[in-house]
Amino acid sequence: MNFGIIMAGGVGTRFWPISRKNKPKQLLVIVDEKPLIQSTVERLLPLIPVQAIRIVTTQDLMGPIQNVLNFFKNENFILEPYGKNTAPCIGLAAAKIFREDPKGILVILPSDHRIENEETFRDVLSLAMNYAEQGQFIVTIGIQPTRPETGYGYIQYKRSSNKAPSHAYEVKTFAEKPDLEMAKKFLESGDFLWNAGIFVVRVDLLLELYQKHLPSFHHDLLLYMRSIGTKEEEKLLLTLYENTKPISFDYAIMERTKNVLVIPADIGWSDVGSWVEVKRLAKEDRNGNAVCGDGLVVHSRNCYVQSSGQFTAVVGLENVVVVTTPDAVLVCHVDQAQSIRDVVTALEQNNRTELL
Amino acid sequence: MNFGIIMAGGVGTRFWPISRKNKPKQLLVIVDEKPLIQSTVERLLPLIPVQAIRIVTTQDLMGPIQNVLNFFKNENFILEPYGKNTAPCIGLAAAKIFREDPKGILVILPSDHRIENEETFRDVLSLAMNYAEQGQFIVTIGIQPTRPETGYGYIQYKRSSNKAPSHAYEVKTFAEKPDLEMAKKFLESGDFLWNAGIFVVRVDLLLELYQKHLPSFHHDLLLYMRSIGTKEEEKLLLTLYENTKPISFDYAIMERTKNVLVIPADIGWSDVGSWVEVKRLAKEDRNGNAVCGDGLVVHSRNCYVQSSGQFTAVVGLENVVVVTTPDAVLVCHVDQAQSIRDVVTALEQNNRTELL
Repeated sequence: MNFGIIMAGGVGTRFWPISRKNKPKQLLVIVDEKPLIQSTVERLLPLIPVQAIRIVTTQDLMGPIQNVLNFFKNENFILEPYGKNTAPCIGLAAAKIFREDPKGILVILPSDHRIENEETFRDVLSLAMNYAEQGQFIVTIGIQPTRPETGYGYIQYKRSSNKAPSHAYEVKTFAEKPDLEMAKKFLESGDFLWNAGIFVVRVDLLLELYQKHLPSFHHDLLLYMRSIGTKEEEKLLLTLYENTKPISFDYAIMERTKNVLVIPADIGWSDVGSWVEVKRLAKEDRNGNAVCGDGLVVHSRNCYVQSSGQFTAVVGLENVVVVTTPDAVLVCHVDQAQSIRDVVTALEQNNRTELL
Repeated sequence: MNFGIIMAGGVGTRFWPISRKNKPKQLLVIVDEKPLIQSTVERLLPLIPVQAIRIVTTQDLMGPIQNVLNFFKNENFILEPYGKNTAPCIGLAAAKIFREDPKGILVILPSDHRIENEETFRDVLSLAMNYAEQGQFIVTIGIQPTRPETGYGYIQYKRSSNKAPSHAYEVKTFAEKPDLEMAKKFLESGDFLWNAGIFVVRVDLLLELYQKHLPSFHHDLLLYMRSIGTKEEEKLLLTLYENTKPISFDYAIMERTKNVLVIPADIGWSDVGSWVEVKRLAKEDRNGNAVCGDGLVVHSRNCYVQSSGQFTAVVGLENVVVVTTPDAVLVCHVDQAQSIRDVVTALEQNNRTELL
């Protein structure tokens, strides 16, 4: 059986002021007309029925997510005690699914990315599920890069190999976010794809990989699996999370695993990682400006306005993002989007909970 | 008798979004705790009693001004049919006062400037009234310049003259707003003062100057004067304004008049001409940033935030002014303040009257 595993535990601050504690990025309506998690689910439904979809998140976010996905029952959720990056998250999902179907195929997806070409995306996923079916490979989707992006991880593949099936390639390395010079080389080489964080794998193989590469976590995970349905379950889940370090699935599993296949895909993917990315996805005029909502940009270049409140005017600026909400305004240089968290930190320090 | 003539017809757009059609600059609370016109009046009251103060403005603005100056009666107002710059405005006031006291001394002041040293200011005005008393001189106040400002007009004075009394100088020329190079020369020379638009003159001399330099306007003005109190008054006032071009008092009268004295004054004067000037007057931190209201500036230099609405955060910017009101937000480069009017024009073209 095929399962959709949607990771939705993120609590990022990069979209402050529209993202808040109970409204992280996956719940935001940005770029498209729907919350990102809704688009993620709807994009998957023609391939995987709703009863086989699991949302991995925390108790706090389950309510807000159910408000958006009101046809999702409690059984659709896998709840982490708290976030510890993606390796524990995916491991927990694997443990839960293994009890249902030890040969189940997991389609693991972030909840907060954007994919324009939905049909192509599903075709690629179908292919990936086929390649994962024998339990030999973990299959990932690699995005054809269109610019020397320094904000993404990359996947280098082997151009020829007799192991890989016709539409896939063997993965040579996973590369961390590069600097600009390196990113340009990656782009020129043609051997590098963007890592979209989408993985397809049979659950028994996945648990083997955890046993091999995260043995201590796997040990606790087995104890937890045996406790499911008993009164020990909650305690052992907490122990599992307390004992593990926050670690990403890429770093803990993918980078250390052979038998990884990648399918190159041109699916109009974006991780919608910051306001700069939202700006890129918006319809810019010939000066590189874009306005979403009630606003005006004059004598300016490369500016983005998103207003869900007042009329917002930008005069004589370059490379600025302005975001207006009914209770907060952000004015940020496009190269300083990572510093938005300093604002959030300051608000936390000043107990401005109404703005968090 | 001494009269205070406060020119309050301005309908400027330079302080949009806080200034609106029925709330021009003179009614704004900026820099200080009170509307500028209230400070202007209160600063004058120890010298000139309220019944001798006249506010020259339009019908539209009389109500909003009376809301601020609620002890001002209708008799305190001189109403222009509409604005035609300062020469008609001052001419109309002269006509009205002449009927009350042909040898009255007029202290003519803008309503929307800021003066920090109020006592010194009144001392200088007293002196000016003395010098004007004989009806020989029109006396102006010249501000000691502190920087090579290109936004003000200048007054050049003669260092020695046997005509001028002890604390005043004969004026050599009025200079228009200079470019930066010229402004630097003005500052170095020591002979140039800022033109603060403050004039003290006996009303009979003033009318003589109108007769000499604006004979056609003076002709209509005499007809109007004779009609005051008759049913022709309103019609002749309209004719007076219809027949005249918009022209400034500086250009029409001061620049063409001999017998002008200037008293140099160090009174902490500012014309509060734009958001940039408000920024200059605000208390800046060591990075040149200032926040008025609920806001935060990080990783930025030389930024000014004024928020009368939401929490407003500025991240990673330089030389930017951000103004937040409940229904509009302005984000403007400090060197582009003059382009704010393009926003107002666009709002007018789109019939966004709620924002005007």
